[in-house]
Amino acid sequence: MEKRYVIGIDFGTLSGRAVLVDAANGNELAEGTVGYPHGVMDGALPSGRKLPPLFALQHPQDYLDVLGAVPRVLAEAGVRPEEVAGLGIDFTACTMLPVDEAGVPLCFLPEFADEPHAYVKLWKHHAAQPEADDVNALAAERKEEWLSIYGGKVSSEWMLPKILETLRYAPHVYEKTARFTEAADWLSRMLTGRETHSAAFAGYKALWNAETGYPSNDFMAALDPRLCGIVGTKISENVLGVDQIAGALDGQGSRLTGLPIGTPLSLPMIDAHAAMPALNITGDGDLMMIVGTSGCHILNSAQRKPVDGISGYVKDGVIPGFYTYEAGQAAVGDIFDWFVKNHVPESYRKEAVERGVGIHQLLREKAEKLRAGESGLLALDWLNGNRSVLVNANLTGMMLGLTLQTKPEEEYRAWIEATAFGTRMILEQYEKNGIEIRSVCAAGGIAKKDGMMMQIYADVTGKEIRIAASSQAGALGSAICAATAAGVYPSMQTAAKAMSGPYIRTYRPIAENQAVYHRLYAEYKTLHDYFGRGGNPVMERLRSI
Amino acid sequence: MEKRYVIGIDFGTLSGRAVLVDAANGNELAEGTVGYPHGVMDGALPSGRKLPPLFALQHPQDYLDVLGAVPRVLAEAGVRPEEVAGLGIDFTACTMLPVDEAGVPLCFLPEFADEPHAYVKLWKHHAAQPEADDVNALAAERKEEWLSIYGGKVSSEWMLPKILETLRYAPHVYEKTARFTEAADWLSRMLTGRETHSAAFAGYKALWNAETGYPSNDFMAALDPRLCGIVGTKISENVLGVDQIAGALDGQGSRLTGLPIGTPLSLPMIDAHAAMPALNITGDGDLMMIVGTSGCHILNSAQRKPVDGISGYVKDGVIPGFYTYEAGQAAVGDIFDWFVKNHVPESYRKEAVERGVGIHQLLREKAEKLRAGESGLLALDWLNGNRSVLVNANLTGMMLGLTLQTKPEEEYRAWIEATAFGTRMILEQYEKNGIEIRSVCAAGGIAKKDGMMMQIYADVTGKEIRIAASSQAGALGSAICAATAAGVYPSMQTAAKAMSGPYIRTYRPIAENQAVYHRLYAEYKTLHDYFGRGGNPVMERLRSI
Repeated sequence: MEKRYVIGIDFGTLSGRAVLVDAANGNELAEGTVGYPHGVMDGALPSGRKLPPLFALQHPQDYLDVLGAVPRVLAEAGVRPEEVAGLGIDFTACTMLPVDEAGVPLCFLPEFADEPHAYVKLWKHHAAQPEADDVNALAAERKEEWLSIYGGKVSSEWMLPKILETLRYAPHVYEKTARFTEAADWLSRMLTGRETHSAAFAGYKALWNAETGYPSNDFMAALDPRLCGIVGTKISENVLGVDQIAGALDGQGSRLTGLPIGTPLSLPMIDAHAAMPALNITGDGDLMMIVGTSGCHILNSAQRKPVDGISGYVKDGVIPGFYTYEAGQAAVGDIFDWFVKNHVPESYRKEAVERGVGIHQLLREKAEKLRAGESGLLALDWLNGNRSVLVNANLTGMMLGLTLQTKPEEEYRAWIEATAFGTRMILEQYEKNGIEIRSVCAAGGIAKKDGMMMQIYADVTGKEIRIAASSQAGALGSAICAATAAGVYPSMQTAAKAMSGPYIRTYRPIAENQAVYHRLYAEYKTLHDYFGRGGNPVMERLRSI
Repeated sequence: MEKRYVIGIDFGTLSGRAVLVDAANGNELAEGTVGYPHGVMDGALPSGRKLPPLFALQHPQDYLDVLGAVPRVLAEAGVRPEEVAGLGIDFTACTMLPVDEAGVPLCFLPEFADEPHAYVKLWKHHAAQPEADDVNALAAERKEEWLSIYGGKVSSEWMLPKILETLRYAPHVYEKTARFTEAADWLSRMLTGRETHSAAFAGYKALWNAETGYPSNDFMAALDPRLCGIVGTKISENVLGVDQIAGALDGQGSRLTGLPIGTPLSLPMIDAHAAMPALNITGDGDLMMIVGTSGCHILNSAQRKPVDGISGYVKDGVIPGFYTYEAGQAAVGDIFDWFVKNHVPESYRKEAVERGVGIHQLLREKAEKLRAGESGLLALDWLNGNRSVLVNANLTGMMLGLTLQTKPEEEYRAWIEATAFGTRMILEQYEKNGIEIRSVCAAGGIAKKDGMMMQIYADVTGKEIRIAASSQAGALGSAICAATAAGVYPSMQTAAKAMSGPYIRTYRPIAENQAVYHRLYAEYKTLHDYFGRGGNPVMERLRSI
């Protein structure tokens, strides 16, 4: 029997999506999405226990539930499990949890069911900002060499601040923890019985690099004496490069997926990175922009240069042979969803229902009729803090230029423009540090769906933006990794070339809009620096009141 | 027959309200409100002609329609027209229009029906900002003495910028105009057949003062050669003090109101000022705060001191014997209405309907549960520009501190707090210029209705705030003036003492909240100065794009 199919599963923020792909050409035969039953727990635990502000937890059982989509996509396409050559997964990061010696999540244990720190801390869990501040202050004071790899700042979203937070607020959880692990690596272990840790996650989110490993024991002890010795015990040093495989499905992995024992599982990729092979973005200077609930800007470069405020670069972290730099916007689509949920009046809802369009669609149509700069509004897109280039989760959103005539669609457009300005800040940060950008490709649901927004991005950044056809790019990328792991292709690059998806459209800057946005961007930048670079740290002071 | 009743009519922004009052004690026997059929015309003329941005026009016929309420309130109370001793009116200001020799509004003439500049320019018509800028620049350059009376700045809401705008954009209207007149004075003329001009309007809104009259011919000619000679021709010098009467109803006045020919009409007062006699606010250092669609802060003082950014002071302008200073906030209730119209989601509307409360009430109840500073939000309340103390109609509103968790009630409360901070800016501006404030009284619909807001005002300003019982204070004040004009009392002060309304409640600052608001106010002030005093004039630049 020919094993001509591969499966990729993309674990997102609210759901997991499995796709069944023809390994010969990348064609998607079937897909299945499973929403996480517990979603994002930011109000209370399943027990009803209320959560402090800025908490964003998940339930690891939800990830296992997603695996149930595998037999369903096979059935839908009429493909037998034996025809599947390999399985690949990609995951949000840093999305981490504490497990015991056997790999059981502590939150599965009855004594920890009511303990927030025993659950998965999702990437957007932002409560560890004080811990991130302490890590940053100590690293700066000690002039730690690894700090420059991360643009000089560690984010509250990363592994070490999240661990330190657990140590401080739930020392009994810390004590009981055998390993702190990325959810992705935990899932590999559940599927293969083998514990591995992916270099991508460790490199981008846990301060690891191939040359010097994790931060030193000295540093850890200075941060908190109780962290002394954590590397090699609660943090595993068994880190594998992306060209290796995680293992093969064991009995439990087979039961969870319905695939045969022995099916190879590729090493997990960070969700955003998985789209790069899926879109065949494998050249020097190729930048991929993911426009989803948050934003991500990933750039391949042959050059190794530390860039302030860029979240990290890892050699061979995504595409073998390149340094791959990563920057991000902590909220993009989340802003529009927040806006629609909290700011759109009943009359607009009614109009949308009457015209049979979605509320986002209605706002987009109204916003599209506005000219650049017409509303007089200007916003800072920091409703979830700023990841790049300021790396400060305590910054907040701002809208300026409001008048009694301001309409919802004007604000909707201003939020879109703000995310575009935030993107331009990031692209300029790359370029002014000498890292060339030769092409820009956009992926993610919004990129495909919202032509107005992509045109604004082109006008604001002055770049041509190519749009990928697949909005399931992450899952396809995982499938390409699976094909590589299964040996269908000799390398990720050849697999990507054969299986990657097409582009549907290119947005080119319109000179007239560019001119207006150039002026608005200058204003954005002034406010960005005033509020974000110490001119007036009012946002942080307000949070502390 | 004993003439024991008086009638006051308050002409507001959206409607006129007539009250029938017992002249002996000020008791209100009946009231009637008539909404202006044309409302505020800020989108299009009745002809369908679209209006430029920032236009806010009215139709003078609407004011005449309001007079129809007089016979109705008489009928409702069973009072005969012959029992009415006098009539008084108060009006928004500067709300001005061009009329021909006979006093006919130009917009009534068929050839001008489609001409925006022939209509009433409402107080909040803000399109004449460039003209106000020119007036200010020239007055500063020529060191005009009168400028200090107005805090060093002329507002775009005032008479001269509005006239200059007409001259520039509709010279044929300017040419045809026999008089530019306040709507209040035009209405006096319609009722009595006699042309008068009230010192209050001229003093606060048209740069007139008793000592030197209007700005000089030299100044007018330098502003625009075509303005040469305007004073005494298109601007009347027949200005009367508030202690005099406008005249007596003639045949037309009798037909319009149903009151007998000869009924005395008091000189019109500015709407906000009329509340002062109505609330017996007649002492040195007594401040009245009107909290309505916009805000007004009127202070009696024996001292004459120029105060930067305060809209003006006129001796004997309101209460004989005092300098009465006036400052204002260009939008207060308008902000909350804008918010409710544009920012409140369907789910909140549903909840309000289910619970049988108004949407403002629902938001207030939710906002009341928040503690001071809890939301992390901070706003600048400039959605209609800033009147005091910055005197700049081109400033715009700002909201800062937004996160993905921000709820509508948090923003609603932040807008309320912003108006309170704006009020504190004004009170401090009085005090730091040596003008003492001994008592604060609040009037207007919001003051009576929104206890949470008044408590926030007390907490933010650190002042005890007394709340007047009547929300028709303006109309009662006009009725008191009518009683004075009719000779029922020998002076406005004695009339006010006998007829003024009671207070229902006093809000006292709560120390704990005061401490938090003190910190938030410091942040407000920093942003106020940054955006409003040249630190970053981004708001004005955005408007100009």
